[in-house]
Amino acid sequence: MGYRVGILGATGAVGTEMRQLLAERQFPVSELRLLASPRSAGQSLPFGGEMLPVRPVSATELAGLDMVLASAGASVSREWAPIAVAKGAVVIDNSSAFRLREDVPLVVPEVNPEALSQHRGIIANPNCTTILLCVVIYPLHRVQPLQRVVVATYQSASGAGARAMAELLQQTRQFLHNEPLTTEVFPYPLAFNLFPHNSPWNEQGYCQEEMKMLHESRKIMGIPDLRLTASCVRVPVLRAHAEAVNLEFAQPLPVAQARAILQQSPGVALVEDWQKAYFPMPIDASGQDAVLVGRIRQDLSHPCGLELWLCGDQIRKGAALNAVQIAELLVQKGWL
Amino acid sequence: MGYRVGILGATGAVGTEMRQLLAERQFPVSELRLLASPRSAGQSLPFGGEMLPVRPVSATELAGLDMVLASAGASVSREWAPIAVAKGAVVIDNSSAFRLREDVPLVVPEVNPEALSQHRGIIANPNCTTILLCVVIYPLHRVQPLQRVVVATYQSASGAGARAMAELLQQTRQFLHNEPLTTEVFPYPLAFNLFPHNSPWNEQGYCQEEMKMLHESRKIMGIPDLRLTASCVRVPVLRAHAEAVNLEFAQPLPVAQARAILQQSPGVALVEDWQKAYFPMPIDASGQDAVLVGRIRQDLSHPCGLELWLCGDQIRKGAALNAVQIAELLVQKGWL
Repeated sequence: MGYRVGILGATGAVGTEMRQLLAERQFPVSELRLLASPRSAGQSLPFGGEMLPVRPVSATELAGLDMVLASAGASVSREWAPIAVAKGAVVIDNSSAFRLREDVPLVVPEVNPEALSQHRGIIANPNCTTILLCVVIYPLHRVQPLQRVVVATYQSASGAGARAMAELLQQTRQFLHNEPLTTEVFPYPLAFNLFPHNSPWNEQGYCQEEMKMLHESRKIMGIPDLRLTASCVRVPVLRAHAEAVNLEFAQPLPVAQARAILQQSPGVALVEDWQKAYFPMPIDASGQDAVLVGRIRQDLSHPCGLELWLCGDQIRKGAALNAVQIAELLVQKGWL
Repeated sequence: MGYRVGILGATGAVGTEMRQLLAERQFPVSELRLLASPRSAGQSLPFGGEMLPVRPVSATELAGLDMVLASAGASVSREWAPIAVAKGAVVIDNSSAFRLREDVPLVVPEVNPEALSQHRGIIANPNCTTILLCVVIYPLHRVQPLQRVVVATYQSASGAGARAMAELLQQTRQFLHNEPLTTEVFPYPLAFNLFPHNSPWNEQGYCQEEMKMLHESRKIMGIPDLRLTASCVRVPVLRAHAEAVNLEFAQPLPVAQARAILQQSPGVALVEDWQKAYFPMPIDASGQDAVLVGRIRQDLSHPCGLELWLCGDQIRKGAALNAVQIAELLVQKGWL
């Protein structure tokens, strides 16, 4: 017995990780359908000892599924998610298409699992940077209400997909060979460089990624008046994001208490060896399920402030793992 | 006519840049002495069409100089700067040895040039990250008093010297060839990775680099009660630092006004093309004198807050250029 699962966007970085996680976590799959745009379809990919074809997405292919994990971009989701739901599937959508819709739960299982019970067919998987942040700051907020968050991100190439990761590697080779750097995915070279996140800007000067962090954090943690400002930056790292986080609470939250809370928080691993100056790093977070957190310290500039530093696998907890955890919860709670 | 100038630490990344800047800016040099530790001495380096020997530092070598530009680390400066001063030279010291001493001016020429008039032989060149920050935020503070600064840095390998830059390049080659990454200068691999700044930690969990930003900013800008918190991070970039800066003022400072101020500020270049999402980047800041600033925006989380993003050449304005500018001011004002 198992579930008929579709992966939409099966050839992408996140789709690939979703397929691997279903196997790795022994999700009860009776049938797996790998779907993609006609351009990406045609290849075969391994699952459960077989090679499965990647087929072009269509209404027919979306029929007869219990669940669709979608990670093919917002426009693809807008087109196909309602069709999948109409055909009887629950869609866990990794795009930004539905995240802020009132009738769509936006879920980080460690934070607001109960929101899943209200779904009407579509469940949104949050923005990667937001997931990593909320997993860490929500347990603190439950003990001492958060008032303001100032965050600066260090975001890996993977957030822009597999082609962006390949571009970073190619540019790096070009740099070492004194060749001109080619840019196709990113607007500027990323090798030995960094730049503000290249998502569209609003009139206030915030980019989309930053506004996602604001609006999605509020919705996930249920703090509609949370004050949050973000500076999102792309760095030459392959697949893990880092964030320098400054928190202001209503009252002081002692460092020792914050540390004790995070030590017991699900999905969080405390990585702090002050002797060795060993703290969360992208190379350690890559491939890990937990969000690594460390450098928890009293903010010297604010009596109710804490500084911390976190790092998490963008493809895994930032996207594919969070989606698969949502699928697991739906099954476990009977909310499918 | 000209000045007899010594460069102590002449073979390092900053010493090299100092020598090049003296030539490039046509500083009136009648004699240049290149000095280094016995380990680094022996080679010859070009200046003014000649090859000059690098000699081991000694009391004899420090005699008869008008000015010494020192960049050989704090312990070397502690040993030799007082000797150079006793022999009649003014020492412009790039190390942290004397920066917080009350009788030593700590100077960014665009911010507090008048402090130079009080020198007693030693003048301190500030920490690189602090220089870049103060050049940008001081002109704003003059118009609207600063109350609090929350900064996250993106610091290049060059801050740890020429060997660190070579290590990053070597690790990158090793990574691309699937070889193990060797670490000698940095405690952890920097290629395709990043980590909190590897300077010693205090009991409050702040590293030395962060405490330098706090104490040196206060002294340079003359704001003894400035509240500042920093998260310093090393990134795989070669020679320019970037900083995501959140500022809180006593009263709101409109974005248009901040932009107009920075457009006219010495040592600052406004780099903001919102259409192209083109903002300061390390590859553009490298080799430039100005600190690039952009992404100036009203902080959505604070009525008196501004966010901005800056980027500057760590070796140049962050170190060698600032020192040479101090030398130029001393000559110009007759304060030598």
